[in-house]
Amino acid sequence: MRPAERAQLALLLEVAATPTPGNVDRHRDHDDLRFAHLLAGAVGAGDGLEAAADGEPVGVAFERAVEGMAAAQSAGNTQFGALLLLVPLVRASADGAVTPDAVSSVVEATTVADAAAFCRAFEAVAVGLDEPPAALADVDVRQPQAAAAAVEDRRLTLAELMARSADVDGVAREWTTGFDRSFAAAERLRGGEGHLTDRAATAFLELLAAEPDPFVVKRHGVEAAERASEGARAVLAGEREADELAASLVQAGVNPGTTADLLAAGLYIALERGETV
Amino acid sequence: MRPAERAQLALLLEVAATPTPGNVDRHRDHDDLRFAHLLAGAVGAGDGLEAAADGEPVGVAFERAVEGMAAAQSAGNTQFGALLLLVPLVRASADGAVTPDAVSSVVEATTVADAAAFCRAFEAVAVGLDEPPAALADVDVRQPQAAAAAVEDRRLTLAELMARSADVDGVAREWTTGFDRSFAAAERLRGGEGHLTDRAATAFLELLAAEPDPFVVKRHGVEAAERASEGARAVLAGEREADELAASLVQAGVNPGTTADLLAAGLYIALERGETV
Repeated sequence: MRPAERAQLALLLEVAATPTPGNVDRHRDHDDLRFAHLLAGAVGAGDGLEAAADGEPVGVAFERAVEGMAAAQSAGNTQFGALLLLVPLVRASADGAVTPDAVSSVVEATTVADAAAFCRAFEAVAVGLDEPPAALADVDVRQPQAAAAAVEDRRLTLAELMARSADVDGVAREWTTGFDRSFAAAERLRGGEGHLTDRAATAFLELLAAEPDPFVVKRHGVEAAERASEGARAVLAGEREADELAASLVQAGVNPGTTADLLAAGLYIALERGETV
Repeated sequence: MRPAERAQLALLLEVAATPTPGNVDRHRDHDDLRFAHLLAGAVGAGDGLEAAADGEPVGVAFERAVEGMAAAQSAGNTQFGALLLLVPLVRASADGAVTPDAVSSVVEATTVADAAAFCRAFEAVAVGLDEPPAALADVDVRQPQAAAAAVEDRRLTLAELMARSADVDGVAREWTTGFDRSFAAAERLRGGEGHLTDRAATAFLELLAAEPDPFVVKRHGVEAAERASEGARAVLAGEREADELAASLVQAGVNPGTTADLLAAGLYIALERGETV
């Protein structure tokens, strides 16, 4: 299996893992996002992931992956954040073993053109976007072409753009830390007992227990995100049923999307390191 | 989405459809075959499906698809029969719209080399093979290389080889009938109410209700296969719960594998004709 195929499989195993409370999983659909959408998104992202493996620029590969993902199904954004982690990881794998140093090198090598392509990728999806942080007021991806022009004017590389969002965006933060939570997730997945999808569900809870989900913080505030993390800790401690937590998060419209992205990245790294199904 | 991607998605949607009594589906694993194996098999088959779309010989494309499927996961044969339907269908799509005539032309154009490649594909999988029919006593795919040599000696094309198995193998029979049950399944899937995966589960029951599953006939005899079809009819008539039928088939070790293959083929045709998720 090639790196791009492993990345597709990581996307599929992430959504197959259950329960991942608050998110669509093997046993849960949302009204506006269903399991089949995520299967199709993973298929559609394939060409962009192959481009990353073939050494295409990270921005171009990411834009292609997002376009393919969006064209493959009708639910819009299914795996944007996961692909923003997977594309540099796959690119790193193309040059050798995937390590924090290798993916950091990929990040550091990104260019202004990569940043512009990243902005244009938003043309393909309605990610439910907020206003940009003040330091990026002119890089408003709700207007993708204008944002691309702005990063070109300001000569921002994709690494620099990510660094400016790292305090509010958990995926961007990975770009600034050598993907530390992604690699930590991979370590949790490696070599444990039981099937990989079951270990993935546990890793999801552990990721959520360890830190409030940044996507939930953005959407619902810090308190809601901390409550979700408390819920995950309670499930891991055997004090609460995962299904009950899932039901309460779904009812509140709380979906820990960044935690799912990190799990997909961790699954990819684990597969690259020899994990199998 | 390209034809090969649609074929991958068809494999994924087939296993996501639930309930498909007796088979692995979104809500059921078997001890020796789990949902994750089928996800990985679909990913691994991608290169062979792309080869079919690119105009590679049907036998070569099929062999590559099966090898990729088998290498991607540890459960052996996951989608052999479905790929034996999908490869000629994808090949037909490469030349224009997928129709019974188009796929019949692909079948008729198969060669002795295609037949030999088909035999060699068995190297990659332990499909749980019986003795060959008497008319094919020397084409025993339990010895793939010898079988390949035998079809070359006898100058059998892949179409001729399929025709000789059509009375006992439901996939081979499709090759002799312009894929009539596959196209019929696609018609059932098109334009109905509800989500495509739900319509797929209904189509599975309708296929099983209409004819005893040939794979079940081979494994468990005609009576067991007819009981499974009666069960499907009872579920469709509202006289029996699908989950109860599923439990009883799993307990008896009865999995209607050919019916699943036909559903995957029908899903592919429906996607080619504009069905979306």
